[in-house]
Amino acid sequence: MDVTASKIGIIGSGSWATAIAKMVLISSEKLNWHFRSPEYIERFKTVKHNPNYLTSVAFDIDRISFFQDINELIEASDILIFANPSAFLNQLLSGLTVSLKDKLIVSAIKGLVPEHKLIIASYFNKIHGVPLDQIAVISGPCHAEEVALERLSYLTIACQDVKKGREFASRLQCSFIKTVVSDDIYGTEYAAVLKNIMAVASGICHGLGYGDNFQAVLISNAIQEIKRFVDTVHPITRDIKSSAYLGDLLVTCYSQFSRNRTFGTMIGKGYSVKSAQLEMLMIAEGYYAAKSIKEINDRYKVNMPITDAVYNIIYEKISPTIEIRLLTESLR
Amino acid sequence: MDVTASKIGIIGSGSWATAIAKMVLISSEKLNWHFRSPEYIERFKTVKHNPNYLTSVAFDIDRISFFQDINELIEASDILIFANPSAFLNQLLSGLTVSLKDKLIVSAIKGLVPEHKLIIASYFNKIHGVPLDQIAVISGPCHAEEVALERLSYLTIACQDVKKGREFASRLQCSFIKTVVSDDIYGTEYAAVLKNIMAVASGICHGLGYGDNFQAVLISNAIQEIKRFVDTVHPITRDIKSSAYLGDLLVTCYSQFSRNRTFGTMIGKGYSVKSAQLEMLMIAEGYYAAKSIKEINDRYKVNMPITDAVYNIIYEKISPTIEIRLLTESLR
Repeated sequence: MDVTASKIGIIGSGSWATAIAKMVLISSEKLNWHFRSPEYIERFKTVKHNPNYLTSVAFDIDRISFFQDINELIEASDILIFANPSAFLNQLLSGLTVSLKDKLIVSAIKGLVPEHKLIIASYFNKIHGVPLDQIAVISGPCHAEEVALERLSYLTIACQDVKKGREFASRLQCSFIKTVVSDDIYGTEYAAVLKNIMAVASGICHGLGYGDNFQAVLISNAIQEIKRFVDTVHPITRDIKSSAYLGDLLVTCYSQFSRNRTFGTMIGKGYSVKSAQLEMLMIAEGYYAAKSIKEINDRYKVNMPITDAVYNIIYEKISPTIEIRLLTESLR
Repeated sequence: MDVTASKIGIIGSGSWATAIAKMVLISSEKLNWHFRSPEYIERFKTVKHNPNYLTSVAFDIDRISFFQDINELIEASDILIFANPSAFLNQLLSGLTVSLKDKLIVSAIKGLVPEHKLIIASYFNKIHGVPLDQIAVISGPCHAEEVALERLSYLTIACQDVKKGREFASRLQCSFIKTVVSDDIYGTEYAAVLKNIMAVASGICHGLGYGDNFQAVLISNAIQEIKRFVDTVHPITRDIKSSAYLGDLLVTCYSQFSRNRTFGTMIGKGYSVKSAQLEMLMIAEGYYAAKSIKEINDRYKVNMPITDAVYNIIYEKISPTIEIRLLTESLR
């Protein structure tokens, strides 16, 4: 496959999928894009932008082939970029009649597949038989909203086949997107999952009234916790202070727009998990991630006080006030 | 000297000195405090708080001995906490008639002594003959404003005599102040100086219109630059992700209240250095630090693209737009 010229298909209809579509269409003439609802596709074609997300980004719809059938999209594409919620990925792919084995699979998802407790790369490798060197991961620090505004952003593309990673990176680069290539798909994915838990913790503390001094301590401890976990689960040489790990954590924890932080803030202010979810009309990825990582860590037994605190608060219904006060004793 | 019971004297009249005075007076009955102006002391006594800084913090003035003469304060104190601007330290101590050699010197200053291009610990050691194991450094992440609000904050106390560091830490601990003790006085001081340069850079980029995605990349690169420098200048084992290094950087770069960031923002928006300084009625420590570190690094030749960019913009008058665009090429 010539990665620099092959056909790209995007799966996902949210902000991040839309931001990636914008990047791709700068250097590629055509794009395949999957939406589950035919009505949504019709609205997109009429208004010439994604009807619900990043609505300021205008698209030339003649350059987009819209697919409602995932099998057709896969057949028409060589590179598949998944940017849909991790909770629905397995269900979406359960009706596959075509093979993914000769595709380049790119995960832009931050989460685990709950049915299998697997990160996305492992899911495609183990469940769909995609060779590991045909799997890449896109990571931030990157708010989709700033891509819409064409503000300079850096993406990390992780792929064990670094040449392929570099070639795919060239499909996203443009005047406002710089790319860094890495071979650490596992570390990049796990760090992206963990940072959502850390953002929930950051929100909880904010909701409880802890200030900026404490947030700085929490986030310093958070990156240490992320390092302990990824170095245990996948022990290779990596600099956790790189943009893909530390930067991604920072942009999520310090953003007012982070869903995970907002969810945490509501919990810290005393909302129940149920009412916070109802209020937000969606579930933050960190909610699922806390449970999945807690279960995975049963095996590894990494010291993860922040993840444990989030888990205890949202699943064991321990009072945030008490749980965070205990947490403050273990931070330094 | 029994550090747990000796008399504490504070030098400095600003927010940070006031925050430290508040902490000290929680566990100590008495405090000596130096102010240069007798009128200022009179006003303090009348209004029962620092007239100009953290004015919400009420003091029991019967527990404070005010000194206008630095020699008298030194004679009356066993532990001296310096929290005055680094630019004026040498001048203040030029008229000393008493010795500092048997005191515990604690630096709460973030900066270098410009006349000697020395960090504070080295200045007291080399110029005033204070043994290194009688020198301690207080570091954040800690905004004075949040101490005033009694929001939980963590301080790092660095002292090569760790027992002494621990004893001194006990003088600051209280319900809202937790302390961490380290033996890394040089790394702690240099990191505190460098973070002000990084905050200027962060402000410049903000002023130029770069967004949160880029800030996360900048700060990830900033902590790597800080690590390269302190590991070269003082190569010991340290975890740069600790609160005293990374946390201190975060609280400064992500704060709207940071003087250094504000100074940078004005430069990024097109103010001249002179007009930014006039507008702020004071000079940000990062302004001096960029020059001192640049000169010190002439010897070490550490790769410091962010420091170099700040230096080029504020001393070589290179256009911020051009200099930061060049910087973006070297970040990852």
